[in-house]
Amino acid sequence: MSKPDSFHMSPDAFREHGHDLVDWIADYYEHVEDFPVQSPLPPGDVRDRLPEAPPETGEDFAAMMEDVEDIILPGLLHWQSPNFFGYFPANTSGPSILGELLSAGLGVQGMLWATSPACTELETHVLDWLVDMLALPDGFKSTEDGGGVIQDTASSATLCSLLAARERATDGATNEQGGDGRLVAYASTQAHSSIEKAVKIAGLGREQLRLIDVDATYAMRPDALATQIEQDRAEGLTPCYVCATVGSTSSNAMDPLDAIGRICRDEDVWLHADAAMAGTAALCPEFRGMHDGLEHADSYCFNPHKWMFTNFDCDAFFVKDRAALINALSILPEYLRNEATASGAVIDYRDWQVPLGRRFRALKLWFVIRHYGVDGLRHHVRRHVELAQEFAGWVDASDAFERIAPVPLNLVCFQHVDGDDASRSIMERLNASGDLFLTHTKLDGRFTLRLCVGQTYTERRHVEHAWARLQEEAAIVATG
Amino acid sequence: MSKPDSFHMSPDAFREHGHDLVDWIADYYEHVEDFPVQSPLPPGDVRDRLPEAPPETGEDFAAMMEDVEDIILPGLLHWQSPNFFGYFPANTSGPSILGELLSAGLGVQGMLWATSPACTELETHVLDWLVDMLALPDGFKSTEDGGGVIQDTASSATLCSLLAARERATDGATNEQGGDGRLVAYASTQAHSSIEKAVKIAGLGREQLRLIDVDATYAMRPDALATQIEQDRAEGLTPCYVCATVGSTSSNAMDPLDAIGRICRDEDVWLHADAAMAGTAALCPEFRGMHDGLEHADSYCFNPHKWMFTNFDCDAFFVKDRAALINALSILPEYLRNEATASGAVIDYRDWQVPLGRRFRALKLWFVIRHYGVDGLRHHVRRHVELAQEFAGWVDASDAFERIAPVPLNLVCFQHVDGDDASRSIMERLNASGDLFLTHTKLDGRFTLRLCVGQTYTERRHVEHAWARLQEEAAIVATG
Repeated sequence: MSKPDSFHMSPDAFREHGHDLVDWIADYYEHVEDFPVQSPLPPGDVRDRLPEAPPETGEDFAAMMEDVEDIILPGLLHWQSPNFFGYFPANTSGPSILGELLSAGLGVQGMLWATSPACTELETHVLDWLVDMLALPDGFKSTEDGGGVIQDTASSATLCSLLAARERATDGATNEQGGDGRLVAYASTQAHSSIEKAVKIAGLGREQLRLIDVDATYAMRPDALATQIEQDRAEGLTPCYVCATVGSTSSNAMDPLDAIGRICRDEDVWLHADAAMAGTAALCPEFRGMHDGLEHADSYCFNPHKWMFTNFDCDAFFVKDRAALINALSILPEYLRNEATASGAVIDYRDWQVPLGRRFRALKLWFVIRHYGVDGLRHHVRRHVELAQEFAGWVDASDAFERIAPVPLNLVCFQHVDGDDASRSIMERLNASGDLFLTHTKLDGRFTLRLCVGQTYTERRHVEHAWARLQEEAAIVATG
Repeated sequence: MSKPDSFHMSPDAFREHGHDLVDWIADYYEHVEDFPVQSPLPPGDVRDRLPEAPPETGEDFAAMMEDVEDIILPGLLHWQSPNFFGYFPANTSGPSILGELLSAGLGVQGMLWATSPACTELETHVLDWLVDMLALPDGFKSTEDGGGVIQDTASSATLCSLLAARERATDGATNEQGGDGRLVAYASTQAHSSIEKAVKIAGLGREQLRLIDVDATYAMRPDALATQIEQDRAEGLTPCYVCATVGSTSSNAMDPLDAIGRICRDEDVWLHADAAMAGTAALCPEFRGMHDGLEHADSYCFNPHKWMFTNFDCDAFFVKDRAALINALSILPEYLRNEATASGAVIDYRDWQVPLGRRFRALKLWFVIRHYGVDGLRHHVRRHVELAQEFAGWVDASDAFERIAPVPLNLVCFQHVDGDDASRSIMERLNASGDLFLTHTKLDGRFTLRLCVGQTYTERRHVEHAWARLQEEAAIVATG
């Protein structure tokens, strides 16, 4: 950093503002519970309070932080509130925030091994750690033919796995000549919307995505998958990709990996397993059953940025055959050539993802694993699962609500006994109150409340309070 | 944050480690010049120093920072060294680092307007500011039919623009039915590798990418583009996308937007303008000539994370017709439905990008613009351009080197008069010395040195030193 007359923030000013901001963040976490979880602001309110033109001359940092307090904070959904039970969590932790700060401070760009060896090697190493931590198949390790890479999101991991599958199925011809309209992909009716998005982006077309029927637990039916593949082959099409879901977004349904994997193996179809939220639970041996059969998968992902205390973005994506992924995504212009790449002795992660550039995201993951230790991470995962199971028990024992899906981990799906309107009204009233935040889905066409326990600081009292508020609102709906 | 017996980092510990880390980063910038710019480590060295297994129990933050010093730092290419002249810069600044810290601290996920209104509205607003700051066409504003969005990289902006173009050319049929192999895309022979990558990902196929010839300044020849489009139409193909480059990666060549834009308009072809590095220069009126004709473009991007003091990742991507982009990328599963989205009154940025989730990246951009003011940003851009022009003058006056491309802004391309081997040897010796960092390209088949002035803290003395070291190494090569 440089002289005060240079417009740059001086080193002393950076220290001062940085210390203040660290304290501000610590204060935020000490008081985040006091904020309404959901922003009460109507559309346009934040923009209306921002000046129409950018400033010609520089402003004080204090003025910026004042606007953060006055304009930004009221416009947030507080994902880090312990009363946040919506969607899937995007939790974080102290060591993760500091890891992200360090990454921003160093400001290295790890597109190639040569553009910061430590950025690549730490990532490779920590992702190998994750294979052991979750007891994933050894084939996903970089020391075998596979390897892991950090993607921004599971959506991007899905897209990359589909592209690898597409090129494997066509011997690289699609990259060269474009699609021929004959490739078919498969996922359950409960799979994440990112599968449909990837199928469109990759040029397969939505009509070539088969949504396979599910059983009573909302898990993919392997027999239905096998039948569909057979039918597609009979029509001269080429099945190339199955995405199995380990913990669906709607209800945490678990597709049976072993049965699906055997079909994929016999049919020579790429199997991707998407465990975006649920994967973290495999830290604990007692939850690893969901991964039975994962040895059949060609790729796998889960998001430490959902449930493993690592701030967004951080999706851990693994492939069994890294050459297949690299073949699909590699480009080498002259201006990126270098000795290390030419030697073949290093990983260049830009060939493992859509973008070229990349941040040093392994730092925050490394900090989180080292700060908590595997033991500390397990402790919190078990705690969240226990709390969700307890909540499920309360739902089961209640007259007002009924649970309508299994609760393998930390997500509970339930409905008010009076039906959709009652359930929707309860959710809207709770969210508007700011006391807690829930979201919904539809299961069998019915409006379903979802409560997911996964925010870092959610404790028993928050879940108890959520249940008390649900009962209160249910009573109002019943008498309304 | 929570009790000390919970494995979490306590608020007090967060404050303490956070303050220390802020100071560590300030120290880093005060000493970054002393590090060899390029890491001297051979492949595998960093990994060899990391423990094979992850820790079962948690470790002290101090132990982590010790390893950062001992293992990570020696393995970095110091992108933030003022002696970094390689690739294009990925610069940053104090306010940007603090903005990223705040984003990580708040931990909100802005996939939808409803998941943090301020995250979406600040982004929309600041990107409208950029339209004014760079004097881009008003049609790119959200207050017209267009709008801006932050992508991770220009690669992703290219892909998104190509997908929008693909769907516009086929009335949405490719998303539904898949590609038909008839769509053709165009860019110059000097365009970035991300165009080829996007054409492959989107299922058009590399053979449907036409690389158009360039003139003596390495700029696309509009006559050659027109001829190629005509020829493709005659063969029954459908031209759908032209990527014009405003500042090519190899030599900062400027494709003539006006002439290309008129062809695209007449041919109803989507024009994307990629100004990844050079765009920032449009802060200064005297450099805006490169954007003449930009009113013909359907989309445009530049990277504040390259030259506008905003840490990676932050690409500003603009479209003239936001509906075309949203039509190409929108997916709406039940679990993401909400009242605000249904009202149509808000922007949901997950429909403007490939991934679903997103960080609050507008904060750092907002902080940078407010800290420097437009005036402060202009000051540094002008300074960098001046220094590069001065360096170009030294090259022109020297017997050892010759400049071989125009220097419209801050990138100088030059060769040693003795040819490729001499140029390569000089680059390798300089980079190995750690004194500065340069990269290369090929122009007309010849090995070409590139020196780009764009790191935040690069001053006259650093450029002078680079030139002195180049002359030293040239003398050694000459006598060798």
